[in-house]
Amino acid sequence: MSTLVNVDGLIAAQREFAAARHWQPFHTPRNLMLALTGEVGELAEIFQWKTDAEAANLAANPAEYTHLQEELADVLMYLVRLADVTGVDLNAAVADKLQKNARKYPADGSRALG
Amino acid sequence: MSTLVNVDGLIAAQREFAAARHWQPFHTPRNLMLALTGEVGELAEIFQWKTDAEAANLAANPAEYTHLQEELADVLMYLVRLADVTGVDLNAAVADKLQKNARKYPADGSRALG
Amino acid sequence: MSTLVNVDGLIAAQREFAAARHWQPFHTPRNLMLALTGEVGELAEIFQWKTDAEAANLAANPAEYTHLQEELADVLMYLVRLADVTGVDLNAAVADKLQKNARKYPADGSRALG
Amino acid sequence: MSTLVNVDGLIAAQREFAAARHWQPFHTPRNLMLALTGEVGELAEIFQWKTDAEAANLAANPAEYTHLQEELADVLMYLVRLADVTGVDLNAAVADKLQKNARKYPADGSRALG
Repeated sequence: MSTLVNVDGLIAAQREFAAARHWQPFHTPRNLMLALTGEVGELAEIFQWKTDAEAANLAANPAEYTHLQEELADVLMYLVRLADVTGVDLNAAVADKLQKNARKYPADGSRALG
Repeated sequence: MSTLVNVDGLIAAQREFAAARHWQPFHTPRNLMLALTGEVGELAEIFQWKTDAEAANLAANPAEYTHLQEELADVLMYLVRLADVTGVDLNAAVADKLQKNARKYPADGSRALG
Repeated sequence: MSTLVNVDGLIAAQREFAAARHWQPFHTPRNLMLALTGEVGELAEIFQWKTDAEAANLAANPAEYTHLQEELADVLMYLVRLADVTGVDLNAAVADKLQKNARKYPADGSRALG
Repeated sequence: MSTLVNVDGLIAAQREFAAARHWQPFHTPRNLMLALTGEVGELAEIFQWKTDAEAANLAANPAEYTHLQEELADVLMYLVRLADVTGVDLNAAVADKLQKNARKYPADGSRALG
């Protein structure tokens, strides 16, 4: 199987970052889940008053692009850290889920949305 | 700079999956943001009635581990797809954010949490 | 000041419901926060693939209306329960916030969005 | 049936507030859903690094209490506004849901959590 996601570098960077600040005791699964929720909220705020056209063109505005990039990173970083502390291999998780989705939504004629 | 995250494989797989089902028109940034919120909710439900000890030991129960793995994958997949349709490079985004965090939370004595 | 929200009946009903099932130990602020997140996710799923026009006309479809009504109720119920266990008076909270918003967004000419 | 929730005052105040600022066109169901998600994220941030004991004692700290009160109000205000623009009666919604929950979780001996 080819690699779908490789987050080894980020896992290592976050472990080192947390250890250097003695933050490991705070990085429990439930704390990280709440922190992830907070960052998803900040990401949602970017889109809340935008039309679909505006949302699709965020990258054209450097300040908005930087903001979007930062919030996407925050969500990804807490997600990867949560997977790390709960012992989940995200590459295997994604590979499994793609297979399940392929069975659930066959390509031939399916139009239903998940 | 070393690679922190590489999600090229997943980006390609999701583009192909959406194209084969004619789903691209539905994969607008705002739709994907709402779908991401939905999956974050399903992930939160896993942790809602758990003690910290139970949450930390989810991997010991095969059924719970499979469920956790699946919800983490769902969040990651919508997050990567949202980054793709908005044109954000997640590896660069994460690298930038780690640098900002390192300036914001110096390792020498800092105990404040982000 | 007139009453903006009165949730006394729901507070009492939820206390009685939890007590009759010995659920009080589970209704900690953090557990309820995660449960609220789960229900917000289910609410978001209703809107995720809808156009704005479809979203505005959900009430016209009885099955969709019932689903929407149920998810709105779930969010409200966890929110009211969270306020109850943390000792927050929602009517006073809303009155204060409306005053702050009136100062932050003056009506004369303001077009900025919160 | 006794009244479980009465949010008529808040509905009226929010309609007036939005009208005075010409915000009605922005208050679509999907925009309000995203705004609600943003506020839920801010509420979650209050609890993210707290122990259960700290979370249960937020009211003892005036600054933290004010913050908590404000975020609870924000979530409630967007939820009530979302119900208003989609035509959902929250009192009826809550009454229906309490009845469903009573059937789903009988009080005699049930310990399962929703």
